[in-house]
Amino acid sequence: MNYETPQFFHVMQYAAAADGDVIDMVSGNPDWEPPEAIREGLGEYAEADAEEFQYPPSDGLGPLREEIAQRRNVDPDRVIVTNGTGEANYLGMARALEGGAGDEVVLIDPVYPYYPGKVSMLDGETRLVGAARDGSLDVAATCEAIGPDTALVVLNTPNNPTGAVYDIDAVRAVVETAADHDALVVVDEVYDHFDFSGTFESALSLDADNVIVTSGVSKSMAITGFRVGYAIFPPQLVEAAKTRHMLVNVTGSRPAQQAVYTAYRETGPDYYREARDRLAERADAFTAALDEAGAEYTSPDGAFYVLARFDGFPGTMGNVKTLIDEAGVAGMPGATFGTTRKEWLRFALVTPRVTEAAERLADYFDGR
Amino acid sequence: MNYETPQFFHVMQYAAAADGDVIDMVSGNPDWEPPEAIREGLGEYAEADAEEFQYPPSDGLGPLREEIAQRRNVDPDRVIVTNGTGEANYLGMARALEGGAGDEVVLIDPVYPYYPGKVSMLDGETRLVGAARDGSLDVAATCEAIGPDTALVVLNTPNNPTGAVYDIDAVRAVVETAADHDALVVVDEVYDHFDFSGTFESALSLDADNVIVTSGVSKSMAITGFRVGYAIFPPQLVEAAKTRHMLVNVTGSRPAQQAVYTAYRETGPDYYREARDRLAERADAFTAALDEAGAEYTSPDGAFYVLARFDGFPGTMGNVKTLIDEAGVAGMPGATFGTTRKEWLRFALVTPRVTEAAERLADYFDGR
Repeated sequence: MNYETPQFFHVMQYAAAADGDVIDMVSGNPDWEPPEAIREGLGEYAEADAEEFQYPPSDGLGPLREEIAQRRNVDPDRVIVTNGTGEANYLGMARALEGGAGDEVVLIDPVYPYYPGKVSMLDGETRLVGAARDGSLDVAATCEAIGPDTALVVLNTPNNPTGAVYDIDAVRAVVETAADHDALVVVDEVYDHFDFSGTFESALSLDADNVIVTSGVSKSMAITGFRVGYAIFPPQLVEAAKTRHMLVNVTGSRPAQQAVYTAYRETGPDYYREARDRLAERADAFTAALDEAGAEYTSPDGAFYVLARFDGFPGTMGNVKTLIDEAGVAGMPGATFGTTRKEWLRFALVTPRVTEAAERLADYFDGR
Repeated sequence: MNYETPQFFHVMQYAAAADGDVIDMVSGNPDWEPPEAIREGLGEYAEADAEEFQYPPSDGLGPLREEIAQRRNVDPDRVIVTNGTGEANYLGMARALEGGAGDEVVLIDPVYPYYPGKVSMLDGETRLVGAARDGSLDVAATCEAIGPDTALVVLNTPNNPTGAVYDIDAVRAVVETAADHDALVVVDEVYDHFDFSGTFESALSLDADNVIVTSGVSKSMAITGFRVGYAIFPPQLVEAAKTRHMLVNVTGSRPAQQAVYTAYRETGPDYYREARDRLAERADAFTAALDEAGAEYTSPDGAFYVLARFDGFPGTMGNVKTLIDEAGVAGMPGATFGTTRKEWLRFALVTPRVTEAAERLADYFDGR
């Protein structure tokens, strides 16, 4: 087994152990409040009959599954409630790699490092295809990489780390080419509530029988620790995925599922809009201050990350530690996200201190 | 993929849909109250800072992991908090099968059906070895089945479905033979709090570097839906298991972990003793009434199941449905638990109505 442990925890531990004040832009942990109904739902559940503390259905509490199905406009039988979007991606990727169609997995570079980790764990072979410079899908290169050995393509939109929101026609082209080679496509839409561009369209709209859409409420409800996600499988693939889910996890955690169900029912669109607007403002403020610092950067259309590049300062783990110690800003090394952004650093917009962070970076690079 | 979906949910659904009153002895869901501190812990957590709603460490909340380590007298670094004992078993079994030592897995028959399901999912080959008639380990037969192709032996004590509590010397003999063949042993001790015999000893006492012990609080705290379990790995195997845990689930659900931590701290031995005594009484009452019915049965030394055999009425799914419809008692088919107990039915002692259930069975078989 040669899969690598993702490096997030390593950087977070280093930043937490640093001497001075460090602005944490490492994690994918929202720093804002969850919907009030999360707290209410959990408090009510704490008083429920003991019977409600026992196994929910393996594929998730019925009302929660139906709520998700209604929101995504799919048959509830296609929905599996998972232990976060992480498990949803694992189930989708495992289904593809046990399907016998091949063992190659096409991933878009820069890449969320859990994806190649999962591919290795599942005995697949990762094939990286570069995104366009602006983070959008390079449709020609992606389709050219799909062949008879391809079992799976994994897409993530809105994208971590580039902030790109994929054009639905680009996604469709990849899905159709994958179908031509009996390959599946997992589309991870966990940042679907953070679309600043107004152009995001779910891959579910393609109604393709080789597409698995994954998502969850970790980001949209600011509860990454609750572990409530879901996968929406095409009808012919869902039973095998439910079996794997049952054999690995039996089922997800019920207190979290119950609280999320309550929050789905009682949270209006204002909550989500405020979170989105807050992130868009932070992206503007952070990139404006990066301009002052003379950095190159991506302006995100969605999600909550900014990639930045400082001349002569590649995105290595060593340089990330230098910035923690000497600038008081913690980001992630671009080298963690595949091969194409080794010169870059990723900053997560999960702090109100984004302007201060960019100013600290500007001061540090001025002084070098 | 040829693994079978476990049949529990099928029987539970059939029983729930039945017309008349059915006494449910199917599930492994405790019917008693969880510790009061579970409710308190969850209620307090509902009011916590939003920061505490974000990812716990991948291997579990630090204080919870330390509490478990202290109770089991192991180094905290060896503990992974999992999404229930089900995931703990999956991690242990996966570690063995990716170790390259072979692909055969020795399981004891009668067998908890999730075990062979997981073996198939992990591309291993199950080799069933019969338990002794009283459910104890057949050490000679088990050791004889272990050979160069053996990657893993899985033991479960106190045992589901036989109620046997394995002699620690028998476990040691199997562990030593496994070590001779570079095979691992997963010992699932999830029923460790339900030992009526006073003879249970954890496999951790063997201090063997090829033993992985799994357990959890689903049964001991009567919260199967919370999904808090753990695996204790030998030091040289724990890192790879933590990586798999991270790649599959990222981490377990934090509200459940926090509530369990509170309950560990605030629940005295009385709670566990009362639950154990209640089950011992139910076992006595149920088997006494089965005597009246002229059935053969196992008297459990631990866990909370009774295997019973009625002449001329094998433990098929069809006969289980007949008993649901005509006797108003729901059990599990012995045929679900491997090959050796096809004539038997399993009844879970998770209802106060055990005497009534046995009387219903007696009436039904009297009238045939």
